[in-house]
Amino acid sequence: MRNLDEETITQAVLARNVDMKDRRLKEVMTSLIQHVHAFAREVRLTEEEWAAGIQFLTDVGHTCNPCRQEFILLSDTLGLSTLVTAQNHRKPQGCTEATVFGPFYVDDAPEYELGADVGNGMTGEPCYVSGQVRSITGEAVPGARLEVWQADAEGFYDVQDPERTCAQGRGTLHADDSGHFRFKSIVAECYPIPHDGPVGRMLEAMGRHPWRPAHLHFMISAPGYETLVTHVFRDGDKYLDTDAVFGVRSSLVADWVRHEAGKTPDGGESDIPYYTLNYDFVLNPGRPIHANR
Amino acid sequence: MRNLDEETITQAVLARNVDMKDRRLKEVMTSLIQHVHAFAREVRLTEEEWAAGIQFLTDVGHTCNPCRQEFILLSDTLGLSTLVTAQNHRKPQGCTEATVFGPFYVDDAPEYELGADVGNGMTGEPCYVSGQVRSITGEAVPGARLEVWQADAEGFYDVQDPERTCAQGRGTLHADDSGHFRFKSIVAECYPIPHDGPVGRMLEAMGRHPWRPAHLHFMISAPGYETLVTHVFRDGDKYLDTDAVFGVRSSLVADWVRHEAGKTPDGGESDIPYYTLNYDFVLNPGRPIHANR
Repeated sequence: MRNLDEETITQAVLARNVDMKDRRLKEVMTSLIQHVHAFAREVRLTEEEWAAGIQFLTDVGHTCNPCRQEFILLSDTLGLSTLVTAQNHRKPQGCTEATVFGPFYVDDAPEYELGADVGNGMTGEPCYVSGQVRSITGEAVPGARLEVWQADAEGFYDVQDPERTCAQGRGTLHADDSGHFRFKSIVAECYPIPHDGPVGRMLEAMGRHPWRPAHLHFMISAPGYETLVTHVFRDGDKYLDTDAVFGVRSSLVADWVRHEAGKTPDGGESDIPYYTLNYDFVLNPGRPIHANR
Repeated sequence: MRNLDEETITQAVLARNVDMKDRRLKEVMTSLIQHVHAFAREVRLTEEEWAAGIQFLTDVGHTCNPCRQEFILLSDTLGLSTLVTAQNHRKPQGCTEATVFGPFYVDDAPEYELGADVGNGMTGEPCYVSGQVRSITGEAVPGARLEVWQADAEGFYDVQDPERTCAQGRGTLHADDSGHFRFKSIVAECYPIPHDGPVGRMLEAMGRHPWRPAHLHFMISAPGYETLVTHVFRDGDKYLDTDAVFGVRSSLVADWVRHEAGKTPDGGESDIPYYTLNYDFVLNPGRPIHANR
C-alpha cells in the first residue's frame, strides 16, 4: 500500500473494498473502478486532460438545476441511456419497444379526460392523437394509464421555462374499457437538446449536432404489465437517422397525417389544417414498476 | 441507426464520431464511450442504479464551490489521480517520487524569505523544516522555487474556511545558491478528507474511512527540470497503509523529530517542545511545466 504505481494502483483500490457489505454495490464499484482505470491507462490520460475532465464534470454539475438535468443529457448523448434502457427491457417480439426516458418528464402532470387538449395553449399546429393499448396476447388493456409529454413548436418543453405558470404539452389520461385513448395536442417538431451548456460544447467539439427528430413521449402503465416508456417518432423527419440521443426505433416511427381545414375527429370543425396520429401500444405482461417512477 | 439495441448501440455511438476533427479528442472519447458502455453491460446496470448514479454525480457537482472540489475528491478516492500522476511522471530511480496534487493548492500563496514562518498563525506545534533541492546528477539546484501547503492541527487547510482573511500554512520560497531551503511551520497531523458530502457518503457505503496520514505538500520547480508535485509523509502515522487517496510512497515517508524546549534551529529559543524535519528533493531534468499550474 505504500508503493503504488500505475500498474499496482488498481488492485490496491479494489483491495480497499474488502469491508463493503453491500454485495451489489461492491460488484458495481469493482467494475467501475476497473473501467475508469483501464480508460485512463488505455489513452495514457495526461494531467492536462484529467484537469479538463474534472472541470467538464464540474461544469455539468453546475448546469443542473430544477429545470435542467445536464448529466442525463450527457448520458443520453453518449448512448448510455439507450444501452441501459435496452438491457432492462428485453421483451417478446411484438411488444412496443422502449426508448430513452429523457430529462423532461414530471410526475405531477395534470389529469385529463379522454379527448381533452393536453397542449393547453402550447404553440403549434393542432394534432388529434388516438390509439389502443393492448397486451402482447391481443386483449385490450382497459383503463391503462397514459402519461404524455412533448415540446412546443419551437422545441421547448414547458419545464424549460422557469416562469411557466401551468403545465403545457403534458398530461395524464386513462384508456377506456376497450383500451382506446384519444387526446388533442400539437404536432411534434424536431428540436435541439439544450446545447448552450457543457454537453452542447462537447457535441460541438465532437462534430455532432444536437438535434432530435420530432417525437411524442409516452409512459404507459397498467396493473400486471411492464411499464412502457417510449416515444412515437414522426416519419419523414430529417433527423431520424442521427438522433442526438440514439432513441429512434423503426417500429416507433409513425405517420402524422395532414388534413385540410374542415371536420375534425372530435366532431368539431377546424378553420386551419390539422394532423392526426394513430398509434397502438402493446404491453408486456410482467414487472409493473418503471425505475424512474 | 434506427434499430439500436444493447448490442449495437456502442458501435452506433462511435460511428457518430466520424466528423471529429481533433484526433486526440477522438481517441479519448472512443475509449471513454467503450469503457462506460462496457461497465454498464458488465454489471447489467439497472435503471434504478443509473438514476442513482445521475443523482450522485449531480450531488458531487453541486458540492463543488470555490472552497471545495468534490470531483477531485472523487478521482482521488477512486485511485484515478494516483494512476494519472504515476503514468505522467515516470522518471529515473533516485528522483523524488510524485504524488497526488489534491484539491487544496492555490496559485497565489504569499512569498516568504527563507526561514520565515509560513504557518502565519495557524494552530499547531512548531516545526522547523529544512533540506536541499538537487538534480538526479547530484548538483544543487540554486534558487529552486518551493511552494508548500499543509493543514492545521485540526486537519483543515486555510482555503476550507470561507471567512479566512489571510493565507495560513502555505507559502512560496526560493532555495539559496546551494539549493538549501528552510522555513518554520507547524507539525503535520492526519486528517479526514472533507466527508460531509457525496464522496463521504460513498466512502461510508464502501466501508472505507476518509483519513489521510499526516503530510506536507510541496510543488518544486526550476528551469530545466520536471516540476515535482509531492508530499512528505510523517513516519509512524497510523494511516500510512490506508491513505484514503492512495498517495503514500515509502520513499516519501520521513521522520519528524521531537525536541524538548530550548534552543531552536533558527538560533532562537522555544519554551515549548518543537519538531524538526529534514528532507532533500531530487529533481528530474526535463519537462519544466506541471499540468496543474
